[in-house]
Amino acid sequence: MAQTESESSGLVLHWLENSRSHRILWLLEEIKVPYTLKVYKRNPKTFLADPALRQVHPLGKSPVLTDGDKVIAESALIIEYLISKYGGTSCLVPKTTEDQETVKYYLHYTEASLHPDMLLLFITNSVRHAPMPFFIRPIARKIANSMDSAFAAPDATKQLDYLESNLEQNGTGYFVGDGLTGADIILIFPLQLARSRAGLTKEAYPHLWKWLEDMQSRDAYVRADKKAAEHVSVGIKL
Amino acid sequence: MAQTESESSGLVLHWLENSRSHRILWLLEEIKVPYTLKVYKRNPKTFLADPALRQVHPLGKSPVLTDGDKVIAESALIIEYLISKYGGTSCLVPKTTEDQETVKYYLHYTEASLHPDMLLLFITNSVRHAPMPFFIRPIARKIANSMDSAFAAPDATKQLDYLESNLEQNGTGYFVGDGLTGADIILIFPLQLARSRAGLTKEAYPHLWKWLEDMQSRDAYVRADKKAAEHVSVGIKL
Repeated sequence: MAQTESESSGLVLHWLENSRSHRILWLLEEIKVPYTLKVYKRNPKTFLADPALRQVHPLGKSPVLTDGDKVIAESALIIEYLISKYGGTSCLVPKTTEDQETVKYYLHYTEASLHPDMLLLFITNSVRHAPMPFFIRPIARKIANSMDSAFAAPDATKQLDYLESNLEQNGTGYFVGDGLTGADIILIFPLQLARSRAGLTKEAYPHLWKWLEDMQSRDAYVRADKKAAEHVSVGIKL
Repeated sequence: MAQTESESSGLVLHWLENSRSHRILWLLEEIKVPYTLKVYKRNPKTFLADPALRQVHPLGKSPVLTDGDKVIAESALIIEYLISKYGGTSCLVPKTTEDQETVKYYLHYTEASLHPDMLLLFITNSVRHAPMPFFIRPIARKIANSMDSAFAAPDATKQLDYLESNLEQNGTGYFVGDGLTGADIILIFPLQLARSRAGLTKEAYPHLWKWLEDMQSRDAYVRADKKAAEHVSVGIKL
């Protein structure tokens, strides 16, 4: 669905490689609205985002969505905006007020509570594997482990248990209602992080595992992945 | 305004000492609605929250607000709920759609983007000051400094610059419009963390500094502080 900038309808996703912006690309493919993908790269050495992003939004983060003159930052708000403006009558817009409120809760919860724990595990893992003299490595590992056990790991387990149980109780294979909503879109990134860093295994969390497989095999997700692959030069293994 | 549980109108703030729930107490004092304060303590050794919180919400976090049968988790959602239901015609409910959207942006941004950076600085600071053998301390300090300079510190500075400039541009002493809104309420906690851990000084950030002083000297804030002081047994210096 992506178009070149000259054909743009005005909807532009400012997309940074290897960032949380990937799920917005997925959503755009789901709702089949014309958009322009504006690609920003990371510095291969420092891994910092292209400073050109700061011309779009002062914090220089991604994703940012522009729709004509409107600039929308924060993943949860972008998801809400896209679905309410372009979601039409698809299941992305839940029919009941209760489901709408639950989606809204997930949009907040995922970014405010779940993601920071996953990010911390990601960071302590970088500490464990950073280049350093061999005699420091055991100490670094011990410090990273202490940070995990004091702050991130107990919370991460509690959160994965909670999400597994929510998914099981809902029983449809989606987090809210019986189809794809903003809740699934926002949750994909921290749950992908959890699979690689926080013990989200097939055995321990069968419902979350199946959900990840289902989401990642959706046509729109596969299209988004393919599009992203064309533009990625710096790799992070998820 | 707090009442004992037997007199409760149904609105109960489940409040954990030394947590982000303090700002909800402040908001309740601002909107002058009757409420019950249900106090939960931290374990003085492990600093973990009272497990009784899990009976209110499965994640066992605070704040949680209950209003009759309704259970509301996530600070930003609680703030939005209280203001929309009990804010009446006060300035807490912005008059223009643009201001309403800006408040909504701050509710997301503060929890999803600003708070995690401040929390990481808080955690790396704990690493620096944790009890450990003297010969490990310099290595721990170096690791904490590397984590700060790779992940948290550059972002923290960028965010404080951004907020200082927003406050200066708005020019009213508040983040949105010309009176107290949910944006001020949500921002107080990470900005208090920034004052103690992330270089928010009077010299570098005069507008943010004055804003903090103004907010903390409001009658409602002073009342909330006094009420909290009666129930705090485990101290964190902010």
